[in-house]
Amino acid sequence: MAVTAAGQRGGTLMGSREEILARVRDALGTASGTPVEVPRDYRRRLGAEEAASRADVIALFTERLADQRATVRHVGADELGTTIAAALWGREAKQIVVPADLPYGWLAELDGVRALADSQVTDVATLRAVDASVTGCAVAVARTGTIVLDGGRAQGRRALSLVPDHHLCVVHADQIVGTVPEAVARLDPYRPLTWITGPSVTTAVELARVPGGHGPRGLEVIVVED
Amino acid sequence: MAVTAAGQRGGTLMGSREEILARVRDALGTASGTPVEVPRDYRRRLGAEEAASRADVIALFTERLADQRATVRHVGADELGTTIAAALWGREAKQIVVPADLPYGWLAELDGVRALADSQVTDVATLRAVDASVTGCAVAVARTGTIVLDGGRAQGRRALSLVPDHHLCVVHADQIVGTVPEAVARLDPYRPLTWITGPSVTTAVELARVPGGHGPRGLEVIVVED
Repeated sequence: MAVTAAGQRGGTLMGSREEILARVRDALGTASGTPVEVPRDYRRRLGAEEAASRADVIALFTERLADQRATVRHVGADELGTTIAAALWGREAKQIVVPADLPYGWLAELDGVRALADSQVTDVATLRAVDASVTGCAVAVARTGTIVLDGGRAQGRRALSLVPDHHLCVVHADQIVGTVPEAVARLDPYRPLTWITGPSVTTAVELARVPGGHGPRGLEVIVVED
Repeated sequence: MAVTAAGQRGGTLMGSREEILARVRDALGTASGTPVEVPRDYRRRLGAEEAASRADVIALFTERLADQRATVRHVGADELGTTIAAALWGREAKQIVVPADLPYGWLAELDGVRALADSQVTDVATLRAVDASVTGCAVAVARTGTIVLDGGRAQGRRALSLVPDHHLCVVHADQIVGTVPEAVARLDPYRPLTWITGPSVTTAVELARVPGGHGPRGLEVIVVED
């Protein structure tokens, strides 16, 4: 019997599916439906060797972001407006999109850059055409260099951090926690959460590293130390 | 003995002071320091004859504001940006001041008007020189046509609603309550509260009606019906 390449691939997938289901059945055992003891012995906080102080937590976050080829800047609260303007001028951005509830002061210095307040009627073509989006975040994780958006204040809908090619995200120092469990504890699981770890990169096609496959090619973070 | 005009005035003041203190002592009686029963039999809510529905509460608020020579407009949430811009264009405003955390969308249509984000370093001369301020509010009272600011979100510090000569205030329909007791129940007494009932008018000098004595001469309210 002739087996085509497609058939082979189908067969491999089938084999994986069966293996996964078998593992699930094994794990469930005969106790299906009864509560299972979930091991919680992972580390919930940063150890003293990783971060002894708040400054260390922020430094670790910065380091991890830099590892991911994201740009990071640290500013005082009174420099935020000029820093955002300078970052956008540096990219020669002409038009950006922001959540309608972004604090006005963040954009108060934005001479020569048109900021479009997002609404449900902004179409994807417009979001694709802008030079960048500017948002806040809900929480950030130092150990993984991750930013989490939950659609709350100054964050807008998910499309803002996914469709424009460059994402400028403002993180207040008090939003940075050490670990993922600490971040989860601060978040509401019923909100639309977007976890962002560095600029978007995919290696789905022949393992070639292609930026921007599933989100912005550029991620720029401004940490505000209040 | 010669009595100067100044002496007479001093004497009159002294007389008033003694009279006031005497009344306070009378009111305190001998029970000083013990709790007093405060009569609470005033009406805490609007009666059905005043406002049978939410729409009536909003209509009453609008009517009372108009009685005070304030301008009132009603808009949907998606028209807010254009309404604020149109209101400022109509006044030929060139420069305004806003709290730094004013939602960006409120000013997104503001072509040709410079919006200054307020900070602690903005001096009074600058606040005097701008054409208007734009703020939100904490709560509004239908029966009295009053707007209350508490320094919270989109409101900024008190100077913003006192120093510029024109105050444009955005009131969301769900911020309007019927009566003062209802407003007090929503407010935190420890915050810096500013109660605004119409544009500023004083009759302190010879009972002549002088606008702008203690605040803006113009009050313009935009009610957002979400």
